[in-house]
Amino acid sequence: MKVIEGGVCAAKGFKANGIHCGIRKNKSKIDLSLIVSDVVASCAAVYTTNLVYGAPITVTRNHLKNGKAQACICNSGIANTCCTGGVEVAEEVCAAAADALNCSADDIVVASTGVIGMPLNPEPIKKGLPELVAGLNENGSDMAAAGIMTTDTVKKEIAFEFEIGGKTCHIGGIAKGSGMIHPNMATMLVFITSDVAIAPALLQKALSSDIKNTFNMVSVDGDTSTNDMVTVLCNGMAGNKEITEEGEDFATFMKALNSVTLNLCRMIASDGEGATKLLECKVTGAKTVETAKKVAKSVICSSLTKAAMFGADANWGRVLCAIGYSGAQVDVHKIDVTFKSATGEVFVCHNGEGVEFSEETAKAVLTEKEIDILIGLNDGDFASTAWGCDLTYDYVKINGDYRT
Amino acid sequence: MKVIEGGVCAAKGFKANGIHCGIRKNKSKIDLSLIVSDVVASCAAVYTTNLVYGAPITVTRNHLKNGKAQACICNSGIANTCCTGGVEVAEEVCAAAADALNCSADDIVVASTGVIGMPLNPEPIKKGLPELVAGLNENGSDMAAAGIMTTDTVKKEIAFEFEIGGKTCHIGGIAKGSGMIHPNMATMLVFITSDVAIAPALLQKALSSDIKNTFNMVSVDGDTSTNDMVTVLCNGMAGNKEITEEGEDFATFMKALNSVTLNLCRMIASDGEGATKLLECKVTGAKTVETAKKVAKSVICSSLTKAAMFGADANWGRVLCAIGYSGAQVDVHKIDVTFKSATGEVFVCHNGEGVEFSEETAKAVLTEKEIDILIGLNDGDFASTAWGCDLTYDYVKINGDYRT
Repeated sequence: MKVIEGGVCAAKGFKANGIHCGIRKNKSKIDLSLIVSDVVASCAAVYTTNLVYGAPITVTRNHLKNGKAQACICNSGIANTCCTGGVEVAEEVCAAAADALNCSADDIVVASTGVIGMPLNPEPIKKGLPELVAGLNENGSDMAAAGIMTTDTVKKEIAFEFEIGGKTCHIGGIAKGSGMIHPNMATMLVFITSDVAIAPALLQKALSSDIKNTFNMVSVDGDTSTNDMVTVLCNGMAGNKEITEEGEDFATFMKALNSVTLNLCRMIASDGEGATKLLECKVTGAKTVETAKKVAKSVICSSLTKAAMFGADANWGRVLCAIGYSGAQVDVHKIDVTFKSATGEVFVCHNGEGVEFSEETAKAVLTEKEIDILIGLNDGDFASTAWGCDLTYDYVKINGDYRT
Repeated sequence: MKVIEGGVCAAKGFKANGIHCGIRKNKSKIDLSLIVSDVVASCAAVYTTNLVYGAPITVTRNHLKNGKAQACICNSGIANTCCTGGVEVAEEVCAAAADALNCSADDIVVASTGVIGMPLNPEPIKKGLPELVAGLNENGSDMAAAGIMTTDTVKKEIAFEFEIGGKTCHIGGIAKGSGMIHPNMATMLVFITSDVAIAPALLQKALSSDIKNTFNMVSVDGDTSTNDMVTVLCNGMAGNKEITEEGEDFATFMKALNSVTLNLCRMIASDGEGATKLLECKVTGAKTVETAKKVAKSVICSSLTKAAMFGADANWGRVLCAIGYSGAQVDVHKIDVTFKSATGEVFVCHNGEGVEFSEETAKAVLTEKEIDILIGLNDGDFASTAWGCDLTYDYVKINGDYRT
């Protein structure tokens, strides 16, 4: 598994582009992205579990019933959610994109991210499509990654090269994260492309299984978005024997997929709105995997723990508190807690009680940009990891006046 | 039901006091409170559901097995939680208080609030007891209310006068709120006193029933505290016929208790850490009361909604989003949302979709200090209210470096 350049264009037969079409007022902000496969691809997706969901979710879900797609179009600025006629607008965008790409509208994945409740005008998108399509190229992942950003401060891209059955394969992805991030059975916006040949059912199985330990374990602010979606397109152009059942090839693909999703998770958490630090909570010694997950997620979601990490304050009592209200059945008197970073580590709690530690060392550990919160439950063999970020002044600033 | 002065000393036979005994370094900060009844009283309590809970919870729960108590002692500064020997320290405090008051240690309610994981030294408390007891007086509620504060900016006291069976009765309470506030089956620290005569079992029934719609519907930051506790002492000195069964007198008492708890809820929410606004989310038209509660609580807990309220931004999409991920089964296409305050109201969402509204009016409504978020689910007859506050820079500031 080798890290390579190229993001969603790393795999054979994928091109991408992003332009400013006019949905956002700021002309320097790219607001429309397109990813296209040369041929129709197997496509799997997972969606938000929020009962309030965007019109693009309805349309994409419908288009992916046959497990096939050829292109993804996504705008930022407006979420196309909670608006009359949103589904019709999303269909109109797909039809226009299909027309420009000379493919079927049913093979288009459509997504939107931005403000909820404001109508999406399809005209700027339709007008922008010729330029968007004309500019499609094999180095376009950057532009596509830029076009799906909202309050993200950095583009999120990753790609890997690996082998299946002697054939060189590629997989890469881009993501939009930042705010309203608390995935539940699905996540933020993520587009992944690969040239692996895999049947739609197996692709869906791989994705649905992977997100349980990746995107569903990320939280920036506890708010599950209305427009969350992860899609994976696999166009088969690597020439491997199509994966139609579980086995060695499927396992290799799962590992490659996981390399992409894990990296995107970390990128999303560390670029959480206002974040200055990436928090990784690693729980071990749990009685069940569910216990480990509940504990990891509860700690990563605790506003008090997040604020303490912002202040580089080794306030482990807040970690214990968050474990205690997580709903997981744990033996409080067996819990160990360690804070760890590139600088070193500091053991702060043993058997649910404080141990003496150097405040100086703790400060040095917690002043780093990536903090591991290691929790040993000492009560079993299961583990889980969750990703989040600190809670900062800038989170409040960004969200105090996002809409106007 | 008449509002009166006096807090926890409003009822006959109750005295209180608060002093600085030395647990906190800041000498101007009162850190030890005592509330005493002239006679042994019926006493009920509810406690945090956090699996990590303070040693005082263990001791108080044990002391209240017989439903009787005569005094409450509470320190701030240190929570006496997650420390070796914490239970012994809490027992030692009770024994010393019982000695100074000439009552039984079993009749003492003990509570602590402050930093988790640091050992509580009982010596300053024991040394302070003579002064604390000597100063007990019928105007001491203020001092007691001050002694239980942590990051609270205002003292929280309320009292009412009412009648049962021709006898004038009184009930009053004090509360500590501010941070780590997300009660679940119990709450922050609240001490309520009354001169009503009521059997312990009925008192517990009244309290356990009341908190479901009061303290359990408050959230400042989603973090359920380790030291939450509400206690009510009723000493019978009003001379009413003891309430031993449900009926008119019990209903009157419930109403009086609810007047105290509702007022304290609003005070706790509006003085949430860093808060500039009180948010009251009123849900109506729900299919079940559980649905109404889930929706109200989800909206009041949403970081994005809270930050929008801080910025006086009528971003109702975030309210819809929080309803959607609440876990409640609602028909999204029937939801109405209105923001309301002393200035007026603005109707922002009908049938789950945005309606045109004046941004100017919305800004005026949301610039007030108390905002009602009115949600009509239009799907049934049940209602619920939850209380919270906005998310501000100061929340982050206070919690970025609380411990050091």
